[in-house]
Amino acid sequence: MYDKLYHNLPVSEALEEEEEVDLFDYYYDEPGSLPGTLNIEEDADPPSIVLIDYSETTATRVQLATPEACVPYLDSESVSWIDVQGLGSEDVLQRLGKVFHLHPLILEDIVNVPQRPKIEDYKDQLVIIAQMAMLNEQEDSFWIEQVSFVVGKHYLLTVQEEPEHDSFEPVRQRIRHNRGTIRKHGVDYLTYALLDGIIDGFFPILEVYGERIDQLEDEVVTNPTRKTLEKIYRIRRELLALRRCIWPQRETCSKLMRDISPLIRPDVQIYLRDCYDHTIQVIDIIETYRELTSGLMDVYLSSVSNKMNEIMKLLTVISSIFIPLTFIVGVYGMNFDHDASPLNMPELEWYFGYPACWALMIATASGLVYFFWRRGWFENVSSLKDE
Amino acid sequence: MYDKLYHNLPVSEALEEEEEVDLFDYYYDEPGSLPGTLNIEEDADPPSIVLIDYSETTATRVQLATPEACVPYLDSESVSWIDVQGLGSEDVLQRLGKVFHLHPLILEDIVNVPQRPKIEDYKDQLVIIAQMAMLNEQEDSFWIEQVSFVVGKHYLLTVQEEPEHDSFEPVRQRIRHNRGTIRKHGVDYLTYALLDGIIDGFFPILEVYGERIDQLEDEVVTNPTRKTLEKIYRIRRELLALRRCIWPQRETCSKLMRDISPLIRPDVQIYLRDCYDHTIQVIDIIETYRELTSGLMDVYLSSVSNKMNEIMKLLTVISSIFIPLTFIVGVYGMNFDHDASPLNMPELEWYFGYPACWALMIATASGLVYFFWRRGWFENVSSLKDE
Amino acid sequence: MYDKLYHNLPVSEALEEEEEVDLFDYYYDEPGSLPGTLNIEEDADPPSIVLIDYSETTATRVQLATPEACVPYLDSESVSWIDVQGLGSEDVLQRLGKVFHLHPLILEDIVNVPQRPKIEDYKDQLVIIAQMAMLNEQEDSFWIEQVSFVVGKHYLLTVQEEPEHDSFEPVRQRIRHNRGTIRKHGVDYLTYALLDGIIDGFFPILEVYGERIDQLEDEVVTNPTRKTLEKIYRIRRELLALRRCIWPQRETCSKLMRDISPLIRPDVQIYLRDCYDHTIQVIDIIETYRELTSGLMDVYLSSVSNKMNEIMKLLTVISSIFIPLTFIVGVYGMNFDHDASPLNMPELEWYFGYPACWALMIATASGLVYFFWRRGWFENVSSLKDE
Amino acid sequence: MYDKLYHNLPVSEALEEEEEVDLFDYYYDEPGSLPGTLNIEEDADPPSIVLIDYSETTATRVQLATPEACVPYLDSESVSWIDVQGLGSEDVLQRLGKVFHLHPLILEDIVNVPQRPKIEDYKDQLVIIAQMAMLNEQEDSFWIEQVSFVVGKHYLLTVQEEPEHDSFEPVRQRIRHNRGTIRKHGVDYLTYALLDGIIDGFFPILEVYGERIDQLEDEVVTNPTRKTLEKIYRIRRELLALRRCIWPQRETCSKLMRDISPLIRPDVQIYLRDCYDHTIQVIDIIETYRELTSGLMDVYLSSVSNKMNEIMKLLTVISSIFIPLTFIVGVYGMNFDHDASPLNMPELEWYFGYPACWALMIATASGLVYFFWRRGWFENVSSLKDE
Amino acid sequence: MYDKLYHNLPVSEALEEEEEVDLFDYYYDEPGSLPGTLNIEEDADPPSIVLIDYSETTATRVQLATPEACVPYLDSESVSWIDVQGLGSEDVLQRLGKVFHLHPLILEDIVNVPQRPKIEDYKDQLVIIAQMAMLNEQEDSFWIEQVSFVVGKHYLLTVQEEPEHDSFEPVRQRIRHNRGTIRKHGVDYLTYALLDGIIDGFFPILEVYGERIDQLEDEVVTNPTRKTLEKIYRIRRELLALRRCIWPQRETCSKLMRDISPLIRPDVQIYLRDCYDHTIQVIDIIETYRELTSGLMDVYLSSVSNKMNEIMKLLTVISSIFIPLTFIVGVYGMNFDHDASPLNMPELEWYFGYPACWALMIATASGLVYFFWRRGWFENVSSLKDE
Repeated sequence: MYDKLYHNLPVSEALEEEEEVDLFDYYYDEPGSLPGTLNIEEDADPPSIVLIDYSETTATRVQLATPEACVPYLDSESVSWIDVQGLGSEDVLQRLGKVFHLHPLILEDIVNVPQRPKIEDYKDQLVIIAQMAMLNEQEDSFWIEQVSFVVGKHYLLTVQEEPEHDSFEPVRQRIRHNRGTIRKHGVDYLTYALLDGIIDGFFPILEVYGERIDQLEDEVVTNPTRKTLEKIYRIRRELLALRRCIWPQRETCSKLMRDISPLIRPDVQIYLRDCYDHTIQVIDIIETYRELTSGLMDVYLSSVSNKMNEIMKLLTVISSIFIPLTFIVGVYGMNFDHDASPLNMPELEWYFGYPACWALMIATASGLVYFFWRRGWFENVSSLKDE
Repeated sequence: MYDKLYHNLPVSEALEEEEEVDLFDYYYDEPGSLPGTLNIEEDADPPSIVLIDYSETTATRVQLATPEACVPYLDSESVSWIDVQGLGSEDVLQRLGKVFHLHPLILEDIVNVPQRPKIEDYKDQLVIIAQMAMLNEQEDSFWIEQVSFVVGKHYLLTVQEEPEHDSFEPVRQRIRHNRGTIRKHGVDYLTYALLDGIIDGFFPILEVYGERIDQLEDEVVTNPTRKTLEKIYRIRRELLALRRCIWPQRETCSKLMRDISPLIRPDVQIYLRDCYDHTIQVIDIIETYRELTSGLMDVYLSSVSNKMNEIMKLLTVISSIFIPLTFIVGVYGMNFDHDASPLNMPELEWYFGYPACWALMIATASGLVYFFWRRGWFENVSSLKDE
Repeated sequence: MYDKLYHNLPVSEALEEEEEVDLFDYYYDEPGSLPGTLNIEEDADPPSIVLIDYSETTATRVQLATPEACVPYLDSESVSWIDVQGLGSEDVLQRLGKVFHLHPLILEDIVNVPQRPKIEDYKDQLVIIAQMAMLNEQEDSFWIEQVSFVVGKHYLLTVQEEPEHDSFEPVRQRIRHNRGTIRKHGVDYLTYALLDGIIDGFFPILEVYGERIDQLEDEVVTNPTRKTLEKIYRIRRELLALRRCIWPQRETCSKLMRDISPLIRPDVQIYLRDCYDHTIQVIDIIETYRELTSGLMDVYLSSVSNKMNEIMKLLTVISSIFIPLTFIVGVYGMNFDHDASPLNMPELEWYFGYPACWALMIATASGLVYFFWRRGWFENVSSLKDE
Repeated sequence: MYDKLYHNLPVSEALEEEEEVDLFDYYYDEPGSLPGTLNIEEDADPPSIVLIDYSETTATRVQLATPEACVPYLDSESVSWIDVQGLGSEDVLQRLGKVFHLHPLILEDIVNVPQRPKIEDYKDQLVIIAQMAMLNEQEDSFWIEQVSFVVGKHYLLTVQEEPEHDSFEPVRQRIRHNRGTIRKHGVDYLTYALLDGIIDGFFPILEVYGERIDQLEDEVVTNPTRKTLEKIYRIRRELLALRRCIWPQRETCSKLMRDISPLIRPDVQIYLRDCYDHTIQVIDIIETYRELTSGLMDVYLSSVSNKMNEIMKLLTVISSIFIPLTFIVGVYGMNFDHDASPLNMPELEWYFGYPACWALMIATASGLVYFFWRRGWFENVSSLKDE
Repeated sequence: MYDKLYHNLPVSEALEEEEEVDLFDYYYDEPGSLPGTLNIEEDADPPSIVLIDYSETTATRVQLATPEACVPYLDSESVSWIDVQGLGSEDVLQRLGKVFHLHPLILEDIVNVPQRPKIEDYKDQLVIIAQMAMLNEQEDSFWIEQVSFVVGKHYLLTVQEEPEHDSFEPVRQRIRHNRGTIRKHGVDYLTYALLDGIIDGFFPILEVYGERIDQLEDEVVTNPTRKTLEKIYRIRRELLALRRCIWPQRETCSKLMRDISPLIRPDVQIYLRDCYDHTIQVIDIIETYRELTSGLMDVYLSSVSNKMNEIMKLLTVISSIFIPLTFIVGVYGMNFDHDASPLNMPELEWYFGYPACWALMIATASGLVYFFWRRGWFENVSSLKDE
């Protein structure tokens, strides 16, 4: 479902596409609908439920058929990570809500995507709504997908919009192969590891944008065209979308790091501080890029004005040189009758009349050329050719 | 009355209409008037008073003739929702004020519409002034109407500007058909349900604006005209009006959600948190749209400059090619007398004079065309045709 | 005196006038002068002192000859409002300072107008400096005049710059005719009533500006001229002046409403809350208008560019059509001697030479017209005529 | 020394001068230098030390030869004001530091000018770094000079950059002639009086800028030239410099006014509140001026565009009228041979041929003139002449 | 390694270079990598470890072969400064982490450069990440290099990216030659001295930018070219990079100065206050420069428009004068047959026909010249020559 909502096409083709219309969409209830109404899209994937249960010594991965199948795991001392992918069945989701004792409004936020990222504290549960951004395969666009976390004492429930992509695979591998310290920690560290994966997913995207801005910096000065303008606007627009995803997540990290919820232990808060730092870095880079593109727009406008100046100069040089000459040849094209009066255009009868006329024209043209040369106009005109 | 104040016509016709003048109007007292003076508009609808009284088991709907008729309901344990629509009678409104023991300044705020949204806490009453925005039937404009809430222990008084439209119908249906949990809760939940309906009413409007901005994004690059400019300005202006409606409502929700007034019970505060999230979303979208339109204005300006550049290029190409040619033909239109001197225009007597002249002109024109082609000017000119 | 300082002339004439120079003036001490030095302008009106003394049952109005004459009233239980108008006598003002035990710096702030609005708390006195704005008779400009309040337990001293205009007359009428509840309250309510009158005086001014902005919105799109630009700049400038008057008054109201000074009783604080709301509304409208004028400036710039585009298009169309034609007729104005060579301009001898030449010219012109018509240039040109 | 650093030349000449380069200079340590290193400029004036010792009854003024000479005065009950002018001797300054027990970093801040204004509290000393701005004699530029205050229990040490100008003379006169209450107060009041003099010194400068902005407002609309642009930029730049001087001083006043240091007594804090108000006024005026100049820049850009429009209109009118006429006369300058064919230009043989040609041309020209007149182009062109 | 990342080339060549691409780079973890993974660049310099151990009486400098070699020094009462330069060996860095008991995340921040500057408090260690900026030899660009501080009770560990440059040499000299008070203080003063050196390193860079801005101020008014635009954009971009380095360091200084960590003694906090002041100054200057360049961009745009105006004026003057003249000579080049009718161009037969024609043309031209002269157009054109 998300690729219909968020798929960003390559910059060059995208402006004509319909999909990008929804880049700034939010889910909203039909006005007047009951609070807690779940909105299931028809083409959404059916939910797949995967449970990973691990402790320091063992790790199990089970594909569950029903939400109720995870009940036995929830209160055991081992960490149970229930990962639901796909929002295609209201029945399954409602039963999931019952299994985890979710407030109807929380279930609504989880299912009716996309929501604004946030964190809410329900005594024995911590609910986190996050947005995951991932570069696509061609590295020219990104997807945004909502991931919801329900953190309990011994379990973590994550709900993703659809099953195809996520940035959690490295964490699964770390659990499976017992790499790092993840199996020594509890649910809080798992939450950190997944959140950290989400935040880190923004960096490769920003790197792509950094490269595009670099390309535009050249383009905007050497050869600004209408396409350049579109590209700048597009980058600004997409950075705005990224900022909307990451900005509220800063508050999430900040709250996790500072507020001492009994579900987050102090030794994991040190890790969350690192996660918070990364969030600040992402925001910092986005703001810097926005300032750069804003500067690029100024440079673009100036470059366009500069181009106009040079076009006008060329027109002025050519017009100014030839218009007086055309006047001179017009004079000697007049038909005043020399026979009627000796005053009528005697020049036409002079022996050196025609050469003198050319001399006059060459002198006029040279004077004007010298005038423009003194003002340095030709430098720019000749430099134009080299581009 | 409100349609005179706020009716937004379809974008294409609106700039000529007089009604939109009042989009940013506020009610203000005639300077020096007594505090508490009620201002009744002559053409306002007479107030209609509808009482809906419900408990978990029963629900009654009564059309009341006088404000005093609702007194018996006010202190009963059941929830009494008194909905007044229309502000056309000072007498009825004053009596209403007496029945509900309203402070004269509160009554003034309720009657002298529009006021800035706010919430005030009067010990045993909570007064909320809100602005309700509704898309009209053609989906091309919106209405804004003031709704005032007086929340008591067992009653809710709502006062609307006029009887024709509101976004409360779904709530009435939920009460009537006992859908959801509304009849299990008290006045606080009813207040939430109505406020939620008001906030949710902003989303369809914003969706319309989102689509308009998308259309403008195409228009501004491919075919920017004076109309485009008007549309951008109009959208900015209307977003400004929406922002003024919703911005102070954020504070209302925030206060309801946080301050523990005995009239709002903790279990309803969870719902109000949801309502607050929606308000933040609305503000967030409005700000994003404002940034987008601000970017559109930049793109518009650049597009106009680009167009000028292309017009100038065309003029320069045509002028630069033909002005030298015209000079050449002017030269051979001169009347220097060949008889008077062999130096006078011998070219005219040459056997290949005329072909040589054409050859010169063709060479000149080709040289200039090549010069412009090298600089890539023709690409743009030819692309212009395709639009 | 104030009209010399602040008088705003009608927009159309004002830019040439000298008076508006002082729109942003502030009084400042000659550097190095003694603190507490009073600066009396020579042409200032002599102070007139009017005492209104009232209780719930009686109300007296006395014109006092000397400041000392009000001493007997100050400590009586009735409310004594001493209204001084005009700052033309240092002696009277110094004696006034003694009667009311004013700190020299306070007296300086009262007399050396204009000062920045503020509120200061001196144990048994509350000093408020406010700026009163009033629309003039022609409704095309406004005056700003400083009003200072000294609030005591049983008295209120107000000092106005000059005697001619104020917005206090309705309050005097309410006291005289015992309208509303003013005579039932004390000094604090009187202070509220006067402050409220000052704030309400901003609304009619803002209404005038709202109308001007509406007019400009039409003008800026349909017929932007240099005058339009001046008007936009002037409105921005005057809104800036209004904002400087009202912005610090917000703090005054806020402090009065929140800080529990024993001089302001709780039941009057409810009224001050209303006053604060109005101040916020005024600031809100000013900010909205400033955003609108800022948008208007953008539209103006775009309109000017658009106009230039259309002028250029016209020039380009006419030049592009006639320059090639003029070249053609130039060709056949050449004097190559047909007798010298059969190759020299045989066209001139053709039987259909002249009609063929016209056919060529008409074909050329038609081709160019079609080219411009395809690009839609004529639409704009023809629409230009209708304006 | 300071005039080399800060001297602002008259606007018209300044851009070429080298001195203004340092308008935004700050002193900084050579990276890696020892903290507390004093940097003595070679051409700095040698320090002159003047002691003014006064109590309510007596006042003495002594020119001291060495810093140590003031030791006997420091602990006496009378107020001792030691005023050092000139920073030209490291030895004297080091000894001064020892006499007053100054921390090396404080001495560094006093000597290595200019520093950012600040206030620091060292138990029994209060150190204030301030910037004094003074209008020069021609009233077309201003100087900035650092003044440092060391406030002790019975003494005040002030250190100025150079001896020629200061704004302290009125205070010296007040002490000498026992004017006002200065001799009745202590060191704290003296500090206030000097700080107040510094703040008040900004007002005449701002008045000059207010007048310049007024002049520019006319100039920018009626006759915008390149010089206008330079002037606007220059004013913005100088307001920026002023803002940097005054902005941190606001914090100084605020701290003095609020924090109860035992060195500042409550009755002087009332005076400091006044001083704080003036600082706010200065900042307020500077910000207003900055907004005005920013608006002026917009108007300037628009005026330039308007001028271009009018130039283009003129060119278009003249070209559009004469180019078709030139085509017509070109037609009848063609040499098609009437003898070869009766179709070849029979008009030339008509009896009324020439008058008919003129009639055609006059009709064409009139039609075009009417077309432009209908569009109102001539109004602007004629109004142009009047300027 | 850092010169690949940050090296800023001279302004004139830089836009073509690839290196500057990374000016805004941040290190980020490969998404999904283990927290604490060290990323060693292949071409990084191998770490060199230098220990400087000093007390008031002695100072030793030792080049250490292994990280473990410094263990004996760490707990001695003397101050041990371990300076590691180069990040080229994971093994050495890991062992370093063990010796100093560094948290894996801290080690990651130290090694995976560049990180955002920050300060973190780990009970008995204070970790500071800072960015050091240094002017290069040609004084036309700057380097940025990360320096990490680990402050313990008796030791300071600093880790620099590479061994070639640092701004710590003066501090080493002060320790070696026992200059100033550095050997009398502890680790906290050493930390201050190094941090101060880092901050002071920004000033020479800013001085270079101040000079560039001064040059641009001239250039932008007298001779704005495309290069000017590039330079302004480049300066803005580089100031943005500097701001990102210094802005978070302000928080570092602020925390060190205020929060009473037992590792920082009160007498050193006075020095840190000085360091904080310098940081504020650097930020202040950067912001001022950013405002100035933003103003320069406006001036640039205006100058370009002004130039266009002058080009257009020249074109208009020349076209307007010669086009009517060309029309006149065209008239008398027509071939109406005088023989066919006496009305056909009798002027051609007049005795004074030709001189009269010249008189007409001279009168026309003079009239137009007078018209333009009255409007003051020639002033600008002649002033153009002088440049």
